[in-house]
Amino acid sequence: MRAPRSAWLFTLGNEVVQGRVVNTNASYLGRRLTLLGFDVRGNISLVDDVSLVTEFLKYVMSKKPTLIVTTGGLGPTYDDRTLEAVAKAAGLNLVLNEEALMMVREKYSEKGLELTEDRVKMAYLPEGSIPIPNNVGTAPGCWLEVSGTIIVSLPGVPRELEAMWENWVEPRLRKLFPEIHIVERMFRVIGIPESSVAPIVKKILKAYGNVYIKTHPKGHEIRAPVLDVYVMGASENLEGVKRTVDEVVKRLINELKGLGGRIEGINA
Amino acid sequence: MRAPRSAWLFTLGNEVVQGRVVNTNASYLGRRLTLLGFDVRGNISLVDDVSLVTEFLKYVMSKKPTLIVTTGGLGPTYDDRTLEAVAKAAGLNLVLNEEALMMVREKYSEKGLELTEDRVKMAYLPEGSIPIPNNVGTAPGCWLEVSGTIIVSLPGVPRELEAMWENWVEPRLRKLFPEIHIVERMFRVIGIPESSVAPIVKKILKAYGNVYIKTHPKGHEIRAPVLDVYVMGASENLEGVKRTVDEVVKRLINELKGLGGRIEGINA
Repeated sequence: MRAPRSAWLFTLGNEVVQGRVVNTNASYLGRRLTLLGFDVRGNISLVDDVSLVTEFLKYVMSKKPTLIVTTGGLGPTYDDRTLEAVAKAAGLNLVLNEEALMMVREKYSEKGLELTEDRVKMAYLPEGSIPIPNNVGTAPGCWLEVSGTIIVSLPGVPRELEAMWENWVEPRLRKLFPEIHIVERMFRVIGIPESSVAPIVKKILKAYGNVYIKTHPKGHEIRAPVLDVYVMGASENLEGVKRTVDEVVKRLINELKGLGGRIEGINA
Repeated sequence: MRAPRSAWLFTLGNEVVQGRVVNTNASYLGRRLTLLGFDVRGNISLVDDVSLVTEFLKYVMSKKPTLIVTTGGLGPTYDDRTLEAVAKAAGLNLVLNEEALMMVREKYSEKGLELTEDRVKMAYLPEGSIPIPNNVGTAPGCWLEVSGTIIVSLPGVPRELEAMWENWVEPRLRKLFPEIHIVERMFRVIGIPESSVAPIVKKILKAYGNVYIKTHPKGHEIRAPVLDVYVMGASENLEGVKRTVDEVVKRLINELKGLGGRIEGINA
């Protein structure tokens, strides 16, 4: 079931790692990429330490993923150094990008503000990058292709990131990659411990190699077992994957009912 | 300001990476560890792939952190393999832990359920581990010390993890490490773009090496600038760090008022 297009997320910033904010950027991007047919392998959050970020970027780049998305660290402050890390990891220079500079200049000139050093800084991108317009905030994003990996860098402020993703990045990815259909089903089973469901899931997965099943305990394993069962398939062939997923769900439900489970929330 | 005790988080599971849940375990643990005086360096979320998890654990262990906390993958299903990865990364065998087996047996015997293979599996820990009782769910956690690093493994279900953290793990860490006091201040400045605040922050940080300052844009950089300013210091000497942080806040506020900023929300 592993899609041939793999992705990694880097959601950067002390406030994320130290838990002062909940990392909704990771869940937003993880979900969007999965629904686009990407096999998201991991999300790495790091403190604002440019050498640590460079090191992990290099490490993940050595795995040759299709896509890396970074969030955070594009702004004007001393600790906004993500693009420096991307450039270093890619072995490229950080250069003043004329198009990015125009974007930044335009924003500040609206209010008659001059281009200070800290403002110009936001227009420095790794050489060969394409700046991504930021219609909500100020710092441009960055699209870079290096050794077969696309590296997209976006700001950390969720409403800026989400707008840039939806208006610019996702349409571009859709053009570059053939559509993959994701079929998901979720239902609830009440009255059977997860440890009793485990062998059934194992058996069915053996029969259907390219479907993913996961159980999420919601109640109490022994005293009041409640499980959410998630079934997912991905394929370029929508009808085929629908059929397989529905067959798996049907088999699961039959077996679980056989064990005395009560099924809820299936709308198939 | 880097505390001598460093920590890394591994929050594991497809549902986290693919964004089907928001990763509140990472923010919960990041926050608790920071307030305990740990320098949390990063959080790594990975899909349920035992060799990928092993690889990243090894990589992070080679940095010799004080503490690694993993969440998820301790249950009875086929994809719950975190302790296998911990054992492999540490070069240890996974062995049946008698104390953990007693914990698991007790839970199931309450309801007259037998110990199937999938249930016994939850009692296999890396050799030399101490099982952590789980009073909310079923799978025990695991405390392991290896080459100077403590590795704590907890379930992924937040209410299980949080109870185990608060009742067992945190009290143990408090005994092992001297208390470090964390002093935090947060205030809001309205009317100055982040790019104008940046040089002030840089200057003050130069004067006070061991204090951390971060600005979080909340409004619009140019049209309606609103910034949350976070100041933090950590030290074993509470009075000293309080004095320094308050001094930094006072200097910041003076400079920001000088630029015409309106200050809100400071309760000092």
